[in-house]
Amino acid sequence: MLTSEENEAITRVGPGTPMGVLMRRYWMPALLSEELPAPDCPPVRVRLLGENLVAFRDTNGRVGLVDEACPHRRASLWFGRNEECGLRCVFHGWKFDVDGRCVDLMNEPDEFDFRDKVRLKAYPTLELAGLVWTYMGPSDAQPPAPTFEWTKVPDEARHVNKTWQECNWLQGLEGGIDTSHAPILHRRIRKDTDLPGVPPDAPFVTGKPPRLEVEVTDYGYRYYGVREVRDGLYVRGYQFIMPFTQIRPGTDFGGQSLVAGHMWVPMDDENCMVYNWEYSTTGEAMADPELVARELGTGHGELDGLYRKTRNRANDYLIDRDAQRTETFTGIFGVNVQDHAVQESMGPIMDRTREYLGPADKAIIAARRLLLEGTQVVADGGEPKGIADKGQTGYGRARAGAVTVPAATDWRGPLLAEMNGH
Amino acid sequence: MLTSEENEAITRVGPGTPMGVLMRRYWMPALLSEELPAPDCPPVRVRLLGENLVAFRDTNGRVGLVDEACPHRRASLWFGRNEECGLRCVFHGWKFDVDGRCVDLMNEPDEFDFRDKVRLKAYPTLELAGLVWTYMGPSDAQPPAPTFEWTKVPDEARHVNKTWQECNWLQGLEGGIDTSHAPILHRRIRKDTDLPGVPPDAPFVTGKPPRLEVEVTDYGYRYYGVREVRDGLYVRGYQFIMPFTQIRPGTDFGGQSLVAGHMWVPMDDENCMVYNWEYSTTGEAMADPELVARELGTGHGELDGLYRKTRNRANDYLIDRDAQRTETFTGIFGVNVQDHAVQESMGPIMDRTREYLGPADKAIIAARRLLLEGTQVVADGGEPKGIADKGQTGYGRARAGAVTVPAATDWRGPLLAEMNGH
Amino acid sequence: MLTSEENEAITRVGPGTPMGVLMRRYWMPALLSEELPAPDCPPVRVRLLGENLVAFRDTNGRVGLVDEACPHRRASLWFGRNEECGLRCVFHGWKFDVDGRCVDLMNEPDEFDFRDKVRLKAYPTLELAGLVWTYMGPSDAQPPAPTFEWTKVPDEARHVNKTWQECNWLQGLEGGIDTSHAPILHRRIRKDTDLPGVPPDAPFVTGKPPRLEVEVTDYGYRYYGVREVRDGLYVRGYQFIMPFTQIRPGTDFGGQSLVAGHMWVPMDDENCMVYNWEYSTTGEAMADPELVARELGTGHGELDGLYRKTRNRANDYLIDRDAQRTETFTGIFGVNVQDHAVQESMGPIMDRTREYLGPADKAIIAARRLLLEGTQVVADGGEPKGIADKGQTGYGRARAGAVTVPAATDWRGPLLAEMNGH
Repeated sequence: MLTSEENEAITRVGPGTPMGVLMRRYWMPALLSEELPAPDCPPVRVRLLGENLVAFRDTNGRVGLVDEACPHRRASLWFGRNEECGLRCVFHGWKFDVDGRCVDLMNEPDEFDFRDKVRLKAYPTLELAGLVWTYMGPSDAQPPAPTFEWTKVPDEARHVNKTWQECNWLQGLEGGIDTSHAPILHRRIRKDTDLPGVPPDAPFVTGKPPRLEVEVTDYGYRYYGVREVRDGLYVRGYQFIMPFTQIRPGTDFGGQSLVAGHMWVPMDDENCMVYNWEYSTTGEAMADPELVARELGTGHGELDGLYRKTRNRANDYLIDRDAQRTETFTGIFGVNVQDHAVQESMGPIMDRTREYLGPADKAIIAARRLLLEGTQVVADGGEPKGIADKGQTGYGRARAGAVTVPAATDWRGPLLAEMNGH
Repeated sequence: MLTSEENEAITRVGPGTPMGVLMRRYWMPALLSEELPAPDCPPVRVRLLGENLVAFRDTNGRVGLVDEACPHRRASLWFGRNEECGLRCVFHGWKFDVDGRCVDLMNEPDEFDFRDKVRLKAYPTLELAGLVWTYMGPSDAQPPAPTFEWTKVPDEARHVNKTWQECNWLQGLEGGIDTSHAPILHRRIRKDTDLPGVPPDAPFVTGKPPRLEVEVTDYGYRYYGVREVRDGLYVRGYQFIMPFTQIRPGTDFGGQSLVAGHMWVPMDDENCMVYNWEYSTTGEAMADPELVARELGTGHGELDGLYRKTRNRANDYLIDRDAQRTETFTGIFGVNVQDHAVQESMGPIMDRTREYLGPADKAIIAARRLLLEGTQVVADGGEPKGIADKGQTGYGRARAGAVTVPAATDWRGPLLAEMNGH
Repeated sequence: MLTSEENEAITRVGPGTPMGVLMRRYWMPALLSEELPAPDCPPVRVRLLGENLVAFRDTNGRVGLVDEACPHRRASLWFGRNEECGLRCVFHGWKFDVDGRCVDLMNEPDEFDFRDKVRLKAYPTLELAGLVWTYMGPSDAQPPAPTFEWTKVPDEARHVNKTWQECNWLQGLEGGIDTSHAPILHRRIRKDTDLPGVPPDAPFVTGKPPRLEVEVTDYGYRYYGVREVRDGLYVRGYQFIMPFTQIRPGTDFGGQSLVAGHMWVPMDDENCMVYNWEYSTTGEAMADPELVARELGTGHGELDGLYRKTRNRANDYLIDRDAQRTETFTGIFGVNVQDHAVQESMGPIMDRTREYLGPADKAIIAARRLLLEGTQVVADGGEPKGIADKGQTGYGRARAGAVTVPAATDWRGPLLAEMNGH
């Protein structure tokens, strides 16, 4: 439970808000690289931390991420012409390069050349692992590029997609780092159903509910869900990386070691874009990339051209009450649609003054504490966790994993080896 | 005309508002029993007095009416599994019975059993006359069950339905207790049209506009519309029962004595659910139940699955200007759709500081006075009108009726005999 | 750039606002005459300066423009019966004439006749040039009827239509009086495309960007866009008439001298109705009225029954990125749709504290100054510009025009002759 003030401080992300200031210290995904498939292709609207931006790929392939409003008369640059190394406003032809410099003015005679005085807000970008990343904070605090393991493996060893979630980012993050819901919300209740979900005979379904442990790290924390199962202990290990990344054990497809994860990137206070990825830790090509793509894909069901779920709040996620009785716990198709259904049902911004947390919510409580501390660290001029990769103990080596060990034996050793394994 | 403060006080119904506090002293309809057709059927969303609730019928047939938000992390219990005498949240499997007791926690190991500390808000319910009723007030002030005559006759002597009205409840109530509009708004202007409405040769169309009389009772008031017609006086007698019930003369289907009525139950400040009923006062089965059903049904036109009119504000009630010229006064199909059209056109909450009331609005003025007095009575710790049935003079005997008498003879005697007749 | 206070003062038009008070001193278009095609035809909703009104044409052909809310109980008079020289509320049959007088009460007995005490708000109207005009200001300040030249020519010499624009009126006006955007935003980039727009070889496309000059007049200002072209100087002359009228050179159809213009009439703070007209200054019938109609029509693309663009913000104006690459500067079909696209993209009310104006925006700056001065003049009890036609120097003689003259010769003489030519 949070106070009303804490809930405001931890959820809102606009310019100048405590969490908005904190988030602006990190590189964060702005869009998929494939949304800008070629030089001079049409620009794309991006909503990020409450700001309306436009992304474009210039003639040389560089990506610009700029204010949507033209600094002249605030017409939308989304209508702009992306041509000859710049984005040109269609209203009066003012043209800007990826750095926001004004490089042409079509509506003024030559003697009125004030291009040097005009500046379009532009954020630095980089492309990594199929994503365009941006940094929206003070230029003297710009951190090095992200070094998540999944961003370093070859492209064929990784799959990435994204989905629009219609609620505050923290609800999504809290749902993601909550391991105890997985075998409940996502459970299949019939063994032979072909609906997506966790099989009813999976060890973490048949075992007892987990006991949670959280270990704070320099980038966030590791946490474990420890379950008593028939053969001993089944332990799943996860990572939380500030401010909105989770790493979780991947899908088991024919024995290949996959690790997955999500980033809940705030579009504004009431919407976030969830980036989902899965990769092979060995860097080998995925054994079955189509299966992974489909699994991550059907997790969210079908999406429209803006990455919105076609099963959504407006249509009650097309819940099938018959399927709920006989096939899956929710009757909702798609693992991630199930997550979004419950998370979005909490309202645009969940009221954390009215909740009742138990020991199973330990990781959620820990994340809130780190996030609120982070806002304070930044306000005090310090460097928040997870900004830079600290090598041996850094987020760049952080993986998720799962082990089953006989009762009363050490699980931490083998699991940590898996979770920090490169 | 009301002051702005009075208009606020009389219209708004959320927790803690003057009218909200008054209304929470009465049993009120929450939904139709048929919306929960069987034990363990899917739960139903209920919006009532500004609160988001969920209704469910448990394995034993009992109806629960509970907060929509799970007390754990506020996921919607509408997605819940209704099974084995309780509603189970699909997120973490917390389960609650109809009284709001937590009876299971799926996500915590046995040693963390805090079920006794968790409570889901639950309101008492009862089923009567095809409706689920609830009481949302202080438990030490819970009144006896409703005793309207229509709730006491056998099921086959009664027809009930409901319609969502897109405006504040008081607009609906005021429109209902206003007898003077009936032969105007609902008039057919051609005798042989088959569109619903009041025939152009009905006595209260051809007679003079009514003179109104209001007699305050212990539950609200009786009121009369006295009209000079060719044969003498035609008097219609109605009842207003606090806080939102009206009883009116029923449809005349082949001579059977029917009485009808409405309850305008606030969903929130800008929406209400209108419950409509008609019954045979003798308790005999309705002579033509299909005709009654159709009449009450077409009164509202077609409804969608949420009981919303398909002829509504968004489509201008499909007004037919040709029909308005030649068939009916409004050109709008459906007697109650006509009511809703004018009432909803006043805005979500009518501005009563800008109106001009005449003698024909006497009953409206009287209702407002009783309602505002009621808020004061409750604030002062008293018992408002209409809470309990006072026997001989109580609302349980209140009926509506209509008589035609020769001029200069007593109409009150015969009419009162009809209106308090059992 | 304006201060936040200036931006509020200049954009908002509700009753009592500075600009709302100023605008209420002028006759302004309320609707097209053809929207009320015959006596006793159905009434029409009109939203004007933030007020909800209803227009109707009575049995004698007179047009009433009255408050939408019936003064009795605020039901919408749009549902009303337009019959026998009055509009009758369908709820209780109260009837009002075009002057707002209550002429009948259907729901009260004869002895309660308070018609004299009831008054429906009604604004004076007049019909001129295919439009219904109204005056919403103090009755002792009502100016004479409009005398624009286009309102005085014979009907066959004029074409008028209107379009709903989904943003504040001032954005529309500023876009209209901005001559520098025309050869940019509206440019065709291929000579032989049949998409609407300015041909790529038009003199004001091939020439240099314009230098602007503004000359304040007693009704607003004249302004000129002076361009160096191959043959000398190409000068276009426009008129701005307070508070929201622009006159511009008309389309050149086979040599007939046409003049065009627009009025951006505020519906409310976030919507305006743009009235567009074109006329033959000689008063001769238009040589090709269908072509003019089509040109003005396709300027806005298809409209729905409420005069809203079917190519609009919700569908990104159906922008065609391929066409943008090869056919027209924007890829948006329709000259005025192009205007609306950029103007509406500035938001419901453009934030003028964040813009960067250059010399090409001189006319915009001048209009803002006159408008803000006008609010002050009215606040001080004076008469604002453009209220009355001052004869020789009045707005009734104001035309637009364009001339091409050899370099270093006088363009003002010949152009002024054209612009004040009757």
